[in-house]
Amino acid sequence: MSDELDHVDAWWRAANYLSAAQIYLLDNPLLHEPLRPAHIKPRLLGHWGTSPGLNFVYAHLNRVIRARDLEMIFIAGPGHGGPAVLANTWLEGSYGETYPEIGFGEDGLRRFVRQFSFPGGVPSHAAPETPGSIHEGGELGYSLMHAHGAAFDNPDLHVACVIGDGEAETGPLAASWPSIRFVDAARDGAVLPILHLNGYRIAGPTVMGRMPDEALDALFRGHGYAPVFVSGDDPARMHGEMAAALDAAFDRIAAIQRAARSGEADPAETPRWPLIILRSPKGWTGPKEVDGAPVEGTHRAHQVPLPGVRENEAHLRQLEAWLRSYRPEELFADGAPSPKIRALAPQGARRMGAHPAANGGKLLRPLDLPALSVAEVEVPAPGAAQASANRALGVWLRELMRANPDNFRLFGPDETESNKLDTVFEASGRKATGAVIDSDADLAADGRVMEVLSEHLCQGWLEGYLLTGRHGLFNSYEAFIPIAGSMLNQFAKWLRVSRELHWRAPLASLNYLLTSHVWRQDHNGFSHQDPGFLDHVASKGAKVARIWLPPDANSLLQVARSCLESRDRVNVIVSGKHEESQWLSPEAARAHCAAGIGIWDWASDAGDPGVVMACAGDVPTQETLAAVALLRERLPDLPLRVVNVVDLMALQPPPRNPDGLPEKRYDALFTTDRPVIFAFHGYPGLVHELSCKRRNHANIHVHGYRESGTTTTPFDMVVRNGLDRFHLTLAALRRSGRKDGAAEALAAHCRDRLAAHERHIRETGTDLPEIDAWRWPGE
Amino acid sequence: MSDELDHVDAWWRAANYLSAAQIYLLDNPLLHEPLRPAHIKPRLLGHWGTSPGLNFVYAHLNRVIRARDLEMIFIAGPGHGGPAVLANTWLEGSYGETYPEIGFGEDGLRRFVRQFSFPGGVPSHAAPETPGSIHEGGELGYSLMHAHGAAFDNPDLHVACVIGDGEAETGPLAASWPSIRFVDAARDGAVLPILHLNGYRIAGPTVMGRMPDEALDALFRGHGYAPVFVSGDDPARMHGEMAAALDAAFDRIAAIQRAARSGEADPAETPRWPLIILRSPKGWTGPKEVDGAPVEGTHRAHQVPLPGVRENEAHLRQLEAWLRSYRPEELFADGAPSPKIRALAPQGARRMGAHPAANGGKLLRPLDLPALSVAEVEVPAPGAAQASANRALGVWLRELMRANPDNFRLFGPDETESNKLDTVFEASGRKATGAVIDSDADLAADGRVMEVLSEHLCQGWLEGYLLTGRHGLFNSYEAFIPIAGSMLNQFAKWLRVSRELHWRAPLASLNYLLTSHVWRQDHNGFSHQDPGFLDHVASKGAKVARIWLPPDANSLLQVARSCLESRDRVNVIVSGKHEESQWLSPEAARAHCAAGIGIWDWASDAGDPGVVMACAGDVPTQETLAAVALLRERLPDLPLRVVNVVDLMALQPPPRNPDGLPEKRYDALFTTDRPVIFAFHGYPGLVHELSCKRRNHANIHVHGYRESGTTTTPFDMVVRNGLDRFHLTLAALRRSGRKDGAAEALAAHCRDRLAAHERHIRETGTDLPEIDAWRWPGE
Repeated sequence: MSDELDHVDAWWRAANYLSAAQIYLLDNPLLHEPLRPAHIKPRLLGHWGTSPGLNFVYAHLNRVIRARDLEMIFIAGPGHGGPAVLANTWLEGSYGETYPEIGFGEDGLRRFVRQFSFPGGVPSHAAPETPGSIHEGGELGYSLMHAHGAAFDNPDLHVACVIGDGEAETGPLAASWPSIRFVDAARDGAVLPILHLNGYRIAGPTVMGRMPDEALDALFRGHGYAPVFVSGDDPARMHGEMAAALDAAFDRIAAIQRAARSGEADPAETPRWPLIILRSPKGWTGPKEVDGAPVEGTHRAHQVPLPGVRENEAHLRQLEAWLRSYRPEELFADGAPSPKIRALAPQGARRMGAHPAANGGKLLRPLDLPALSVAEVEVPAPGAAQASANRALGVWLRELMRANPDNFRLFGPDETESNKLDTVFEASGRKATGAVIDSDADLAADGRVMEVLSEHLCQGWLEGYLLTGRHGLFNSYEAFIPIAGSMLNQFAKWLRVSRELHWRAPLASLNYLLTSHVWRQDHNGFSHQDPGFLDHVASKGAKVARIWLPPDANSLLQVARSCLESRDRVNVIVSGKHEESQWLSPEAARAHCAAGIGIWDWASDAGDPGVVMACAGDVPTQETLAAVALLRERLPDLPLRVVNVVDLMALQPPPRNPDGLPEKRYDALFTTDRPVIFAFHGYPGLVHELSCKRRNHANIHVHGYRESGTTTTPFDMVVRNGLDRFHLTLAALRRSGRKDGAAEALAAHCRDRLAAHERHIRETGTDLPEIDAWRWPGE
Repeated sequence: MSDELDHVDAWWRAANYLSAAQIYLLDNPLLHEPLRPAHIKPRLLGHWGTSPGLNFVYAHLNRVIRARDLEMIFIAGPGHGGPAVLANTWLEGSYGETYPEIGFGEDGLRRFVRQFSFPGGVPSHAAPETPGSIHEGGELGYSLMHAHGAAFDNPDLHVACVIGDGEAETGPLAASWPSIRFVDAARDGAVLPILHLNGYRIAGPTVMGRMPDEALDALFRGHGYAPVFVSGDDPARMHGEMAAALDAAFDRIAAIQRAARSGEADPAETPRWPLIILRSPKGWTGPKEVDGAPVEGTHRAHQVPLPGVRENEAHLRQLEAWLRSYRPEELFADGAPSPKIRALAPQGARRMGAHPAANGGKLLRPLDLPALSVAEVEVPAPGAAQASANRALGVWLRELMRANPDNFRLFGPDETESNKLDTVFEASGRKATGAVIDSDADLAADGRVMEVLSEHLCQGWLEGYLLTGRHGLFNSYEAFIPIAGSMLNQFAKWLRVSRELHWRAPLASLNYLLTSHVWRQDHNGFSHQDPGFLDHVASKGAKVARIWLPPDANSLLQVARSCLESRDRVNVIVSGKHEESQWLSPEAARAHCAAGIGIWDWASDAGDPGVVMACAGDVPTQETLAAVALLRERLPDLPLRVVNVVDLMALQPPPRNPDGLPEKRYDALFTTDRPVIFAFHGYPGLVHELSCKRRNHANIHVHGYRESGTTTTPFDMVVRNGLDRFHLTLAALRRSGRKDGAAEALAAHCRDRLAAHERHIRETGTDLPEIDAWRWPGE
C-alpha cells in the first residue's frame, strides 16, 4: 500500500473505531483500561452495518479532495449512517469547531461517543445537527435528488452521494437516476453517485444486492452513466481499487466540465457521467461471528452486532477485541486523531463537514425582487376587472428569473404551461434532456425551468437547491401534491430542528403554488379533485407551515413576494389559473395581505352584522360575494359583513400559532355571537380544527369540499358541495333566523335557481349563462 | 397484410374513430350527415394523444387472446387514456352489457360518445366506471404495481400493462420495474409490460422518449427483461411487427411458466420475462398539422388537436375529414361494429372488459379465519399480564396464512421482523428475488410475505391484489406510511365510486397495521416520529375510512379480524410491538371492540364523574390508567370515569359518520358538562375536529403529540408532549377545580416526579425505574 493509501487506511480504521465506540461506549472511549460493563451504554442503539462502507468512502474522498483541491459535500443516503458521518466530521475537526465542547481531547471524545443515540444527544442518522449534512437519513430515498438540487447552479461544487441498496428500492430514489440528464455540465456542478451494495436491508437481502454485476452494469449504462465496480472485502486491495476508481471518476468529471465550458461539447448530447458501484460486506471489519452465527456480510450486521455486552462477559470481551483490532493506540493521541490521520483531512472549508454549501443559509443571497407593478392588474373597482391570477404571477416570475439567473429555479411536473405560468419561458426554457427538435416549444439545453413528471423529484431537487442557499418555487396541480406529502413531513422536521441550531443560518422557504385546484378540475373528474394537502400542511403546525389563499391576482402577487422573502418556512399558496373577477387594487391587496384576514368594507354593511360571510380561496370568495350581492339586493335590511381570509393559519390562536390573530382582533372580525357562514376552499374540518378554541366557534358553519366530486362543470362542483352562492345564501338566511316574507322569497328564488341549474346541466352539459355572466354589481 | 391483421387494423380504425368521436361529438356519431357545429360538444375535453397507441395495443391483444385462448386483463397506465379504453370495451360489447342503455345501436352509440368527459358522464381516464379496469388513470405511476398485484396467486392470468413514458418518470413506476423479480412463475400469473413511448407529456418531451434504443435496451436488460422494440408510424408495417412481438412475448411467457411449473427451472433463477417497447407517434393517425403547426407526433397532439371546431369552419371540415379517414361506413352497421370487427373480439369472459378478475369482488372468497384463541393472551385481571400485541397478532397471522395459502398476503417494507410479526415466517418465507444463501433467514423462492423497501410498491401490489378479489395486510412503521398517502387518496376515491356501481361487487378492505409508532420511536429520533397519517385518513371521511386504536393484544386481535372481514373500506390499525400491560381478557376485548368506545368500569367510579379520563391508543391508555391509579390512591373522593376509544371515527356524529356514536350514547359516555382529559395517540387537532360538533366539546382537553420529538427514552417522549401520567393527573386536577390540600399535595407530587425524571434522564439516559416497574394496582 502506498503511503497515501496507508493514511487512508488509518483514517478508515479510526472512523470504524469511532463508529463502533459511539454505539457501545459511555466511557473509556480510548480503551485506556479493559472494558467493563460500566463503560457500556445502558441501551445499545445505532447501526453498525452501513458504517464501515460510509467510512471507506469518506476516507477516500478526503484523499481526492486534497489531491485535486476540490469543493465537495457528502450525502449519506443509507439509513442510520449517523455513526459514520459523525466519526468522520469529528476526525476532520469540523465537529469540534461546530460544537467546541465535543472536540478533540479525552473529554470531548467521551461526550462525543456518549451523545450518540442517547437521550438529549444526536440521532442515529445524519440530521440537521450534523455538520456538513443537507440530508436526513430518516425517511429513505431522497439522497440523489438532494445531491442534484445542490449541484444545480453550483458550477464548482462536487456532490458525493452514497446511495444504499435498501434506499435504492424506494420510488423516489428509483426516479432519481435520470436526474443526471438534467445536469447542465457548463453551469451546474457534478454529482458522483456511489451505490453502496452491502447486500441487506434490516432483515432481508436487497434486490440490487442479489443482482449480478452484468445486470447492474447494463442498468446504469442504460441510465446514461459509466459505472465502475469496486468489489471485495480485502482492505488492501479495496483501497487500491477505490482510489483508482475515484481518480478515474474525477478525471472524467473534469473532462466533461472542461468540454462543456469550453464550448467543445454538443450541448444536446448528455455526457456519460461516472458512477461507482461499491460492493463490500455489511458490517465490514466487524465481528465475523456471534454466538456461532455469521454476522459480517449478513443482515445480522445491520444494527448492534453484539447485543449482550453489558450482561454477557464473552460478548464484552469480543467487543473489546473488535475495538482493539483497529489499533486505537496508533490512531489517537491525547484523545485526538494522530498527526498521520490529521494529515489526510482537507483544510478549512475544503473539509466536507465544513463546506458552506451544506449550511446554505450562510451563502444565501436575497433574491433581487422585481417590482410587482410589472404584473399587477388594474382593478378600477372591486369586480370591475377580469384576469388570470397565475398569468399575472407568470409575468412577475419572468422578471424574477431574468433578475436572478443563478439563484432561483421554477420546478414542476410538466404543468408550467397548463398552469398558465408559461410567460416564464421568455426568461428561460424548460431543461432539455436530449436533442431539441423543431417541433419542440420552450425547450433549451440550458433551460432552468425544471419539468419532470415526478412530484418527488421536483420537491427533492428544490429541497437540495434551498438547503444549499438558493430560492425556488414548486408549482403543481393541487390534487397530486400529496405525492410529495411525506417529503414535506421530513423537510418540516428538518426546519424545526435546524432553526434551533445557532450555527445553521436561515434558508429560503419551501414555497408551493398549488393550482388547477379542486374547484376547477370539474372536467378531469374525481381523481383530480383533492384539497387535502392543506390539512396535511396544517398538521405540521404554524411554527413552520403557512397556508395562503389569495382571492385574486394582485393578492397572489403580494403573497408570492412575501413567501419568497420569508425564511425557514413552508408556504403553500393556492391559486386558480382561470380568468376570474378581480377584487383588489394593488394597494388594497398590499394592505389586505399584510393583515392576513380582514373585513372587505366595500362588500359589508357598517356596524354590527346580522351574519358574517367569511371566505377563504378564490372560488369561495367569488361565491360568497355572489351570495352577498343577492342578499343585499333582496334583503337589504339584513346587515352583512364579509371577512376574507388570506392567511389561513391566522385563524389559529396564539400560542399554537405565534402569528395567529390575537383574541380581540379575531372577535372583532368574527364577532362573539353572530352566525358565521364560512366558505372554504378545502375540507370543512380544517377550519373547525383551526378555530375550535375561538369563542364564537359554535356559530361557525363551514361550507367546503365534502368529497362530492365527479366529471362535471365548474359551477356544478360548487353546487354539489354546497359551496355555491345559492346554498350560501340559504345558509345565511337560516342562520340569521329571518323567516319573513322577503327572506322566504329569497330562499324560494335560490331553490328555483338550483333546480334550473340541475335542469340546464342535464340538458346541455353547461352551466347557466347567468352564472358565467355574473359580475359584482358594485355600488 | 394477412386477413387476421386486416381485422386488427379494422378494429384499430374503429377504436380510433370512436376515441376521436368521444372527444368531439354530441350527436351524429356515425357521420350520417355532414358535421355541423350543433353536433359538437360545447366544451372539448379529453386526450387524443395517447389513444391511438392504446387502441393499437388493445386490438392486437384481442388477436392474441383468441389465438391462444388466454385469460387477460388490460391496464391502461398512460394518463387520460379513457377514450381508448372506452372505445375498445364498447366495440367488444362488454360496455353495453354493463350499461345496457349505452350498447350497440345508434342510440347507444350517441349516448356513448356524449357521456365522455360530459357532466354526469364518465371521466377522461379509465376509472371504476370502466368495465375491465382495476386502475384509475388519474394520479400516474401505479399501473405496473397494480399489474403485479393482480398477477400474484393468479397462475392463469395474463396482465397486459401499458405504461406511458410520462408515467415512467414517476417514482412509483420507476420503483416498479423490479417487481418482475417478485413473480413466482410457478404460482403467479404473468405481467407483460408494454412501454408506450409516444415521446411527450403535456407540453414537453419525455426523458425516455429522447433516449436512444440502445440505452433503453440496456436499461431493461439490466432490470431483467427481454425487451423487444416495435417502432414506426406506418400502420401496415407496425401491425406485422406488433403481431410478431406479441407472439414472441407470449411464447416466452408460456415457456417460462412451463419450465417453472414442471419443475425444470431453477427457482432461484429469475427468468427473463418479455417487455415490449412501442414507439409510435403521439396522436398517431390524427391531424398532421393544424393552422400550420405540426400536431401528429408532437406534444400538440396531447389533448384536443383541433380546438376550434365549433366556431371555425375550417377546423370543423378538418375534423370531419379526419373522422372519415377511418372509413366508418366500413366499420359500423346500424350503430354496431361490423361483423369483421366483432369477429376479432374474444368471447364472453375472455374479453378484457369482461374478465372477472377486473371486478374482483365477484371472485372474492371470504378468508378462512382461524379462531383468535390460538393467539389470545390470558389476562386474569386488568393489568395482570404483559405481552406484545404484535407478537400475538403474528401468531394469528401465521394460522391465517396457513389456512389461506392462495388468498392472503402480508406486505411490508422489510419490517415484518422489526415489527415483531415474524411468527408468520413459520407459514411462509419472504419472497426471494435471487439466490437464497446459507446465512439468509426466512427467505424462500416461493415466499408469500412481500418485503421491499418501498411503501409505494407494498401499497400498489396490495391494491392490485385486493382489486382482483383477494385479501391482505400492509404493515409499516407509522412515520413512513405517509409515503403512500397520495395512493390512499386515490384508492379511497376508487372505493367511493365503485360502491355506487351496481355491477361492482364489494372488495376486501385495504388494511394497514401501523406500528413502531410515534411513542416508541424515541430511540430513532424526530424523523421517525409522525402520527399524521391518522389526520390524512380521517380527512377521507368515515364513509370509507376507519381508524382503530386497540389498547392491547386481545383488542388488536378483535380489530384485525373485523377489519379482515370488512369490505370496501380503508382500515388503519395502530398498535405497538413492545411488551406492555394487558387490560382486556378475550371476552372483554370482544365486547369492547364491538362497541368501539366504552367505559372501563373496573377503572371507573360508579355514577357521575368529576372528570372523564378518555384515552385512545396503547400508550395513552397506559398513561391514563397510571394517572387514574394515582388519582384514586391520593384523591379517592374525586369520582373518575375512564372511557377508552378503539374506533376513533365513532367520535364523529352521524350523519357525517353513519356509524358514529349517536348523540345520546356519546353524551352518556362523555357527559354534557364535565371536563374530559383526552389522552390521544396522534395530533390533538384530530380529536377536536372529529368531536367539534359534540355538545361537550368545549370541555375536551386533548393531550397528544405536539411535534415535540427527539432522540430520547419512551417515557421522556410522553413527558415532552404532556401525555404522561403526571401531566394527565395535573390536567385532571386543574379541570376538576379541586384546590384543597389533598389536591395540592398530589399536584406537588406530580411536579416532583417530573423533576426527578428530568434529573434521572440527564444523568443516566434512562427512565426512572418506577416508570418501567409501574403496574396497575387492581383492586
